[in-house]
Amino acid sequence: MIDAKAYAAQDPQTDLAPWNFERREVGPHDVQFDILYCGVCHSDLHQIKNDWFPGIFPMVPGHEIVGRVVKVGDHVKNFKVGDLAGTGCMVDSCQVCENCKQDLEQYCLEGNTGTYNSMERDGSMPTYGGYSNTIVVREEFVLHISEDVDLAATAPLLCAGITTYSPLRHWGVGKGHKLAVLGLGGLGHMGVKFGVAFGAEVTVLSTSPKKEEDAKKLGAHHFVVTSDPQQIEAAKGTFDFILDTVSAEHDFNMYLSLLRTNGVMMCVGAPSKPAEISAFSLLGGRKSVAGSGIGGIKETQEMLDFCAENNIVSDIELIDIKDITASYERMLKGDVRYRFVIDMATL
Amino acid sequence: MIDAKAYAAQDPQTDLAPWNFERREVGPHDVQFDILYCGVCHSDLHQIKNDWFPGIFPMVPGHEIVGRVVKVGDHVKNFKVGDLAGTGCMVDSCQVCENCKQDLEQYCLEGNTGTYNSMERDGSMPTYGGYSNTIVVREEFVLHISEDVDLAATAPLLCAGITTYSPLRHWGVGKGHKLAVLGLGGLGHMGVKFGVAFGAEVTVLSTSPKKEEDAKKLGAHHFVVTSDPQQIEAAKGTFDFILDTVSAEHDFNMYLSLLRTNGVMMCVGAPSKPAEISAFSLLGGRKSVAGSGIGGIKETQEMLDFCAENNIVSDIELIDIKDITASYERMLKGDVRYRFVIDMATL
Repeated sequence: MIDAKAYAAQDPQTDLAPWNFERREVGPHDVQFDILYCGVCHSDLHQIKNDWFPGIFPMVPGHEIVGRVVKVGDHVKNFKVGDLAGTGCMVDSCQVCENCKQDLEQYCLEGNTGTYNSMERDGSMPTYGGYSNTIVVREEFVLHISEDVDLAATAPLLCAGITTYSPLRHWGVGKGHKLAVLGLGGLGHMGVKFGVAFGAEVTVLSTSPKKEEDAKKLGAHHFVVTSDPQQIEAAKGTFDFILDTVSAEHDFNMYLSLLRTNGVMMCVGAPSKPAEISAFSLLGGRKSVAGSGIGGIKETQEMLDFCAENNIVSDIELIDIKDITASYERMLKGDVRYRFVIDMATL
Repeated sequence: MIDAKAYAAQDPQTDLAPWNFERREVGPHDVQFDILYCGVCHSDLHQIKNDWFPGIFPMVPGHEIVGRVVKVGDHVKNFKVGDLAGTGCMVDSCQVCENCKQDLEQYCLEGNTGTYNSMERDGSMPTYGGYSNTIVVREEFVLHISEDVDLAATAPLLCAGITTYSPLRHWGVGKGHKLAVLGLGGLGHMGVKFGVAFGAEVTVLSTSPKKEEDAKKLGAHHFVVTSDPQQIEAAKGTFDFILDTVSAEHDFNMYLSLLRTNGVMMCVGAPSKPAEISAFSLLGGRKSVAGSGIGGIKETQEMLDFCAENNIVSDIELIDIKDITASYERMLKGDVRYRFVIDMATL
């Protein structure tokens, strides 16, 4: 076994704190990489607090992981010691079901293996995430990272990036489309960057007029203050797509009214309460509400390559791991532009 | 003006009763046809009872109308006296907006003109529906009906038919797809017929095991009793599409669990309460909930022609107009296989 250190939650009631544990040995198909940076996702906090389902404790969160390879198994073909590497929200899947075979491991019919708060597929031990100094991952779930990018700012692409890239690609959002991005946080700011990069006319929808300047800096063409009835009235029936990144409760019927005929509201946030959707909000213009979860490994690599080629990274604030709890508090208040990333050298 | 007779609701509290009124004169672009048959749609009852919004009274319901042309305006090109004709849920639209120009008059951006319980576009008078002896409709909103079909059983195609045909066509449902039809009523039984005709493998989802024999007679390949947890468990993740025809409250998350990855739940019913949809029901398999409202005029004609060529009609029970109130009561109990049609000779 490999000695590893991390910040872990011992239970849902206590704050993250240093913890020593063991990673599995590097198997023939595994890549071990030392973690340089790990992004902080809102779902890390949801999971250590058991907001969604009872978790596996001690829990080491973190699924926006980049680092440098230190060891590879005998059968590993695509990575060598010294390579940059990344891992996102999953570290394994059945790899044989019809979804896995179509590069949709995120929808593995047996369930994918989460990077943390999940059990290894052989049931031997829990998975532990990226708030840690090192990690061992099957080769198939390790991504290549370009040497030319800002590594810290690339980490959030592994979750916030692919989560917004994938639906925009799946629904073919691009030139000639009017895209609204709902919520300007870790996911939303990436949605704006990708929407602009794909050629769409991008509008940020936000309750806060203060975000307009930032939205424009990120490349958004327009800004709508959703608490202003006049602005909402003017925006009705104008968008081909809404990328909904909001995890708090919100008024789906109001946002659906902003879609054009055949419009699609692509939801990537996960409010804990169900959305209340009136049939008339959908029937009146053949509209859809759709969900999308992260992206497959092949698409994640494509996204990373696209970002490297197009100089797209996340806007981040680099933090010391000892400040993680304070950073969660700021994240809850929306006080981060737009993603915290842990500098793992501080561990 | 043209003297006409009908059954009308004088207000939401009283039953339909005979009423004499005036139709507008036949204008240069109008077709007048004498009504032979008119289908009875659940929305007729919703509207005379003000279930959805305050109606215009006296109200003559009926939007599944077939008859024979008795007069045409000077500029009418496509109809002549003696032709069979039909009209569905709309009798006009702006005809110039981007949706109308794309043959999507049902989604007219100015709002289409309902066949009844609506105002003529010039605001001069209300529209009156098909529970009547004659009707005057703009040529563009009159459909051709084949002389070779069962006329009474063709009437319901104008609403129940197009409402199910259009989403199945729009989402390309056909060979290789597993389609579930939720609810086996006026809409659902047409959904089964179209699904089968388009080559899909069709399953009827129903709370009532008694409907299995009927579902199979209509052509359904499978039947799932939705109140049986074992049958639901076995059906999970199996359907590419669900055609949801139910207007009563129902558990969307349970039905969404029956969809495969990328599955679409196409809603054509209009429950009065909003659906409660969990984000996790959509995110876990890139699923969509979509709405669809009737169909455009061009597509309605295509549907009628398809039905004539493929011997598809509605399963109906022909009634005398004096029995309309009793028929509503049976309809509310689901005691109709599958559509009442009024024989207008009884008026």
